[in-house]
Amino acid sequence: MILPILLIFSLLSSTSNAAVQDFCVADLASPDTPSGFACKKPAAVTVNDFVFSGLGAGGNTSNIIKAAVTPAFAEKFAGVNGLGISMARLDLAVGGVIPMHTHPGGSEVLVVISGSICAGFISSSDNKVYFKSLKKGDIMVFPRGLLHFQINAGGTPALAFVSFSSERPGLQILDFALFANDLPSEIIEMTTFLDDAQVKKLKGVLGGTG
Amino acid sequence: MILPILLIFSLLSSTSNAAVQDFCVADLASPDTPSGFACKKPAAVTVNDFVFSGLGAGGNTSNIIKAAVTPAFAEKFAGVNGLGISMARLDLAVGGVIPMHTHPGGSEVLVVISGSICAGFISSSDNKVYFKSLKKGDIMVFPRGLLHFQINAGGTPALAFVSFSSERPGLQILDFALFANDLPSEIIEMTTFLDDAQVKKLKGVLGGTG
Amino acid sequence: MILPILLIFSLLSSTSNAAVQDFCVADLASPDTPSGFACKKPAAVTVNDFVFSGLGAGGNTSNIIKAAVTPAFAEKFAGVNGLGISMARLDLAVGGVIPMHTHPGGSEVLVVISGSICAGFISSSDNKVYFKSLKKGDIMVFPRGLLHFQINAGGTPALAFVSFSSERPGLQILDFALFANDLPSEIIEMTTFLDDAQVKKLKGVLGGTG
Amino acid sequence: MILPILLIFSLLSSTSNAAVQDFCVADLASPDTPSGFACKKPAAVTVNDFVFSGLGAGGNTSNIIKAAVTPAFAEKFAGVNGLGISMARLDLAVGGVIPMHTHPGGSEVLVVISGSICAGFISSSDNKVYFKSLKKGDIMVFPRGLLHFQINAGGTPALAFVSFSSERPGLQILDFALFANDLPSEIIEMTTFLDDAQVKKLKGVLGGTG
Amino acid sequence: MILPILLIFSLLSSTSNAAVQDFCVADLASPDTPSGFACKKPAAVTVNDFVFSGLGAGGNTSNIIKAAVTPAFAEKFAGVNGLGISMARLDLAVGGVIPMHTHPGGSEVLVVISGSICAGFISSSDNKVYFKSLKKGDIMVFPRGLLHFQINAGGTPALAFVSFSSERPGLQILDFALFANDLPSEIIEMTTFLDDAQVKKLKGVLGGTG
Amino acid sequence: MILPILLIFSLLSSTSNAAVQDFCVADLASPDTPSGFACKKPAAVTVNDFVFSGLGAGGNTSNIIKAAVTPAFAEKFAGVNGLGISMARLDLAVGGVIPMHTHPGGSEVLVVISGSICAGFISSSDNKVYFKSLKKGDIMVFPRGLLHFQINAGGTPALAFVSFSSERPGLQILDFALFANDLPSEIIEMTTFLDDAQVKKLKGVLGGTG
Repeated sequence: MILPILLIFSLLSSTSNAAVQDFCVADLASPDTPSGFACKKPAAVTVNDFVFSGLGAGGNTSNIIKAAVTPAFAEKFAGVNGLGISMARLDLAVGGVIPMHTHPGGSEVLVVISGSICAGFISSSDNKVYFKSLKKGDIMVFPRGLLHFQINAGGTPALAFVSFSSERPGLQILDFALFANDLPSEIIEMTTFLDDAQVKKLKGVLGGTG
Repeated sequence: MILPILLIFSLLSSTSNAAVQDFCVADLASPDTPSGFACKKPAAVTVNDFVFSGLGAGGNTSNIIKAAVTPAFAEKFAGVNGLGISMARLDLAVGGVIPMHTHPGGSEVLVVISGSICAGFISSSDNKVYFKSLKKGDIMVFPRGLLHFQINAGGTPALAFVSFSSERPGLQILDFALFANDLPSEIIEMTTFLDDAQVKKLKGVLGGTG
Repeated sequence: MILPILLIFSLLSSTSNAAVQDFCVADLASPDTPSGFACKKPAAVTVNDFVFSGLGAGGNTSNIIKAAVTPAFAEKFAGVNGLGISMARLDLAVGGVIPMHTHPGGSEVLVVISGSICAGFISSSDNKVYFKSLKKGDIMVFPRGLLHFQINAGGTPALAFVSFSSERPGLQILDFALFANDLPSEIIEMTTFLDDAQVKKLKGVLGGTG
Repeated sequence: MILPILLIFSLLSSTSNAAVQDFCVADLASPDTPSGFACKKPAAVTVNDFVFSGLGAGGNTSNIIKAAVTPAFAEKFAGVNGLGISMARLDLAVGGVIPMHTHPGGSEVLVVISGSICAGFISSSDNKVYFKSLKKGDIMVFPRGLLHFQINAGGTPALAFVSFSSERPGLQILDFALFANDLPSEIIEMTTFLDDAQVKKLKGVLGGTG
Repeated sequence: MILPILLIFSLLSSTSNAAVQDFCVADLASPDTPSGFACKKPAAVTVNDFVFSGLGAGGNTSNIIKAAVTPAFAEKFAGVNGLGISMARLDLAVGGVIPMHTHPGGSEVLVVISGSICAGFISSSDNKVYFKSLKKGDIMVFPRGLLHFQINAGGTPALAFVSFSSERPGLQILDFALFANDLPSEIIEMTTFLDDAQVKKLKGVLGGTG
Repeated sequence: MILPILLIFSLLSSTSNAAVQDFCVADLASPDTPSGFACKKPAAVTVNDFVFSGLGAGGNTSNIIKAAVTPAFAEKFAGVNGLGISMARLDLAVGGVIPMHTHPGGSEVLVVISGSICAGFISSSDNKVYFKSLKKGDIMVFPRGLLHFQINAGGTPALAFVSFSSERPGLQILDFALFANDLPSEIIEMTTFLDDAQVKKLKGVLGGTG
């Protein structure tokens, strides 16, 4: 019985030397590329690269939106690098809102774990709105790049998990994009038709300048 | 004020006529293609195409694996067609097991909603096993195409949601692939090194012939 | 000399029968799929499927934005179906503005043909604004899915051509998405922090209800 | 033992209904799409869709190039539709040549089965030529879209199999593209710098007009 | 009002830390990869990475083809790295010709800005030629990898901009590939059927050896 | 004649500086990324990077499976890096078997060079088995990620070459994945329904522990 073991191990060795790239755990200290971060050396990879516990606790909802988004994208969850998938946790206190936003890099599926959430998106071809009140266990898909939102639709806190078709889907929150930077108010007003007072009020809230 | 409305609507019309394909809700009666099902006519699409309630209730775990997989792939959840994402629900009664399986078409991320789950996968390059006991809120990624499993690791029922990087990731359960069809026992034995008695016993349980 | 011709034609025939799909001109009457429209029969394809003259004349800029977008996406320019590229023409009268918008399905490159254009986009990762005044011959890239805008920055009409990395990049104009449909004002206000009066004013201009 | 079988079959059924698209065997009578032909109904698929015997016999090399290319692309080998791979057989009699050509849709790997073949390609970035005489068992890769050729380099017939990274890689033979159609000689001469006599001579051999 | 600002900034920070890869400006000093150059550090990116002014001036057409191609691919226009799009400028003096060539890596759309251009391509499946005389404002698409050409069709200089479905589409000019390197004349003649005198004449013009 | 050469070379230079990435030969000493290895410097690339002679000799079949798999994936055949294609050689002595396995990263096409091979795969959607005895010259495709096998079906040694739709398709041999590592026997038994004695017997043969 000794012989077979040795022989088959020689097959094993020869194949494993030329093996596939099953995964590419992100080495955050290495250069970023269009396809993702460079890979950790295989010998340094452990099961903990593929497990993330940071979504176990609710985010802090003591803020003006009464909500929190806790992402597990490739920068925090190194195991998903290159695999085209990631997750995030949404906590919405009573009255909580995830403001209008897009994910430039991927589609999203949301599953309601507790509470009730009114969620919707707007199509680009005809500006049609698709929204619905979701109950526990319902899932909803938000196609890539389209404006969408989530609102706590009930009298109790709501919890949802969302998944993305990219390990780095991005998150462009409309109000932050418009009012939390130094884009001149004049340009904002010309390109959004918003009134000057409205723009300045929201810049005040969100810390924008210019 | 009438004039501006008309003028801007003419811009709206001209752009919307040439607009993008934001989504392609599956028309299951139409031909399937390598990129997915043909699309429903836009006028027939409603918000219900993007919402699926079939994961709200637990699957039936009164079976020998004491577990159930309830998928929401494109065949059932038409809104994800072409979007590269889908979900499923895993219910594991006490002692429940999702047997060794692969998804040929996509990577998977699992989030534990209740209970405790021991989950793992095996890499192809060096046959190294990555497994860990996951608690509520933990997430784990299983890279595309690799053998993996989930086992209820606690004394209470466990619930998890899984997401995939494909709207049709597939599910090849090892035992069904080997023992639930008419693949001749002789071929199974030659290609798996399993004993004849073992093969026939499992064919008996799973309904295989030949 | 007759013989060689016949012989080499037999090679030609055998290879052409199994030839490639060089292109897939859209048959707009056929079903749409996630990868694009079904293809016209090869025998029906002519050079006119690959040429589009609809960008030769300026769009009508007699509207409140004093600008026009004339697209040549796959729905109008059937030859680009499946090829991952398309174009559009931008006309900006003096004072003209292409309002804040995104293309969910592709990146864009703009080339200024005449006049001067102030163009910019906002990144999602840190809400940083990148904008610059472009002169004739300058080109600028707008990465996929990010909010961007173009403003006539001079005292003469401006003309630009834009190209996209998709044959159907989509066009989601922020104001149309928010104010030109039946999305309830209450939801808009909760998800954008805009004041009720501002929302109702813009719904009035753009024809929104609810 | 009856009970377990029924129970596990119910799991099997529920999962198989929502199963993956493992493959999409081409239904050549259905519409073509940018991602390939529509799929045959699963019930109509047999093992013969995945097996092709047309490469078993050598092509006819009694022609002026003393060579034959026998392809197994998706149009003839329906099982590869959508799978991103295909094959062809090359037969080169003594003195045989596969003329300068490209595959617009894919990279190629060649393996020499018998005889000796001088094969090469030309890079586009610096027009550098990479060519070598290959012996039995050698493999060579030709990157996508680059001009390449194969010449029988020995005194015996040569046989090779080639594989492509596409199920429909295409085949553009330079001489056929230039001289076997109705492209006006004047245009050929302006765009290739070839002499008029040379162009007309080759049009004569290859059947071109104009 | 101080409090809301601080609270919402904490949300902003937590999301921006895990944000998307909106773009990947090429760091030309870093390693190249199959998906493109490694990315510049985000802090080093400025608007000038996304703007390129090198297409503003006409290329030098004082050469034998009376034409010039000025590219803005990722090597020169770092902002397009990884975004699947790029541009180039074509200048054709009276009598100017862009010789027969392919882009192995992408499809092309051309827009005529001034003058008149006769442009065409040759399909691979049946060697059919598609060509047409284009006037100002016309656009034409050239599918990936196919031989194509552009000729000044009028009595005035012509200007066109071309876009590609790749940030590095490549450019293989037929005459340079055949006659501007050290590919032995004997091999050229065997694989193109060109006469020895013709090959040597063009090698003389283009600097080829061997 | 001097003048034309210089002039056209200036065109050549300007275009080659901005040229395409025709290929990306793997620099195995550089970091790995999700899209493959970083590229060798172009100046260091030679024709030998595109040619591999390691498949010329048969693998050693003096082992318990009487078979050998000799791969030419990107780790050994650097020229295929990033090109989406690779090859391997299968040698099956009389009675030889390539055991049940998957390639997580790509589809496979096999061509029989000598002898006779019984090959098959199992679909995931309905566990249907597709298998057939292949003779010399037959080709068969195995769709991505599905369990498949090859058995010498004749009285003489068999030789086949296989190609993959990925430069690093991976190879997960079922028995090695289950029995050649430290996956606890209890977990194997729970997730495969195999008997304890069977598991321990195969761990003994294949060197597994736990």
